[in-house]
Amino acid sequence: MPTFKITLEYDGTDFNGWQVQTNAKRTIQGEIEAVLFKIFKKHISVIGSGRTDSGVHAKGQVAHFRAETDMPSDEIQRALNYNLPGDISVLKVEAAADDFHAQFDAKRKTYSYTILARQWPSALERRRCHFVPRKLNVALMKKEARALVGKKDFKSFANVNPSHKGGTVRTIRRLHIRVQGDFITITVEGEGFLYKMVRNIVGTLLEVGAGRFPPGSVKAMLLKKDRRAAGLAAPAHGLYLEEVRY
Amino acid sequence: MPTFKITLEYDGTDFNGWQVQTNAKRTIQGEIEAVLFKIFKKHISVIGSGRTDSGVHAKGQVAHFRAETDMPSDEIQRALNYNLPGDISVLKVEAAADDFHAQFDAKRKTYSYTILARQWPSALERRRCHFVPRKLNVALMKKEARALVGKKDFKSFANVNPSHKGGTVRTIRRLHIRVQGDFITITVEGEGFLYKMVRNIVGTLLEVGAGRFPPGSVKAMLLKKDRRAAGLAAPAHGLYLEEVRY
Repeated sequence: MPTFKITLEYDGTDFNGWQVQTNAKRTIQGEIEAVLFKIFKKHISVIGSGRTDSGVHAKGQVAHFRAETDMPSDEIQRALNYNLPGDISVLKVEAAADDFHAQFDAKRKTYSYTILARQWPSALERRRCHFVPRKLNVALMKKEARALVGKKDFKSFANVNPSHKGGTVRTIRRLHIRVQGDFITITVEGEGFLYKMVRNIVGTLLEVGAGRFPPGSVKAMLLKKDRRAAGLAAPAHGLYLEEVRY
Repeated sequence: MPTFKITLEYDGTDFNGWQVQTNAKRTIQGEIEAVLFKIFKKHISVIGSGRTDSGVHAKGQVAHFRAETDMPSDEIQRALNYNLPGDISVLKVEAAADDFHAQFDAKRKTYSYTILARQWPSALERRRCHFVPRKLNVALMKKEARALVGKKDFKSFANVNPSHKGGTVRTIRRLHIRVQGDFITITVEGEGFLYKMVRNIVGTLLEVGAGRFPPGSVKAMLLKKDRRAAGLAAPAHGLYLEEVRY
């Protein structure tokens, strides 16, 4: 059946995450499936590269759906954007291989997390970054973050989730911390992530930057393989799914 | 009486502009005066450098108020930020001269306007820029914009407003157009502006960029001194009051 790969931007603020829920709450998957129903006059499932949590944003989420249609991709894109609410934009629609699967075929994902570290919150950025009313020791954050790069057991940085098949070893290819004025952006690229792993990493690095953990702590946390060893999760509204590669 | 100069950031999306209205709609001035009432237990008027329209944002609006108090500025700032809603941030509170007036003493104002020119709208930026679903001729926009710099009669670019005292001659010190990816930002610095003048200038330059007006049009519009000669106003949600200087 014709398969379409779609690339999405969304503002996660007013969604209860990606996945359709039985309680009728507003979800990204739900909004897209409702519009596909309108276009194709039947239920079509949309499979994302992964489920983003409530409040998490995306600049490049990827999903797929299959539909018996000869409508060209750009027309589908136009119909989706025309009918979707303003907090979801369809950046691309491409014809994909019949067996393309947005979740199973994903090879690499990039997330970013934005922190605002200054005395007063920002009215304009309040939904898009996590406000921390203090200066952070970014040099120490960078140094500690090095321990997280590579193939590691991230059990200490994962919340328990029954969908964790194949254990808690994952590979982080790149972890970059960039400062721009009062904003700190942490970018993490890896071959798949465990449940809440990015937010747990960011939350731990925040506590490192605030001086709560001494040098060498992050490395020690990894070795403990115990969720209680690492820091708390950073809140959802600073997190962006940037890119999914296949 | 002790006078305080306050610098404000706000997200204009959910406000009916700066000025308190009799119809009980939400305004920035109204929110601040309500919090000042809470702090000082009496009505205190807040005077802004100017009234921003419904939907217009600010990164550096300046206002003043007078209050018989010995509370230090940083404590007032803390109390304001603690009590204000998330879409207003108080960036600075400073003790000012007793006769300081945020509106009458303003010497220079800077506004910016952000346009997103690409095929599809942006979910994340939808409240913060004006989306134009086409490429714009920025080189021509820059060329035409030059006619607007200097001391000119901006009657063609002003909506009628009874508060326009002293005619329609104003001075634009700087007009800068910057492109970053699909975003175009127009920055205008001047010694005061007429009603809707920035949005009318931006709207006209948008039509220039879209090829509606031939080269030389903007200069001709100024000479006509007729609002109907220039383009339509650009919408409010792309406009930011960046800075007020005294």
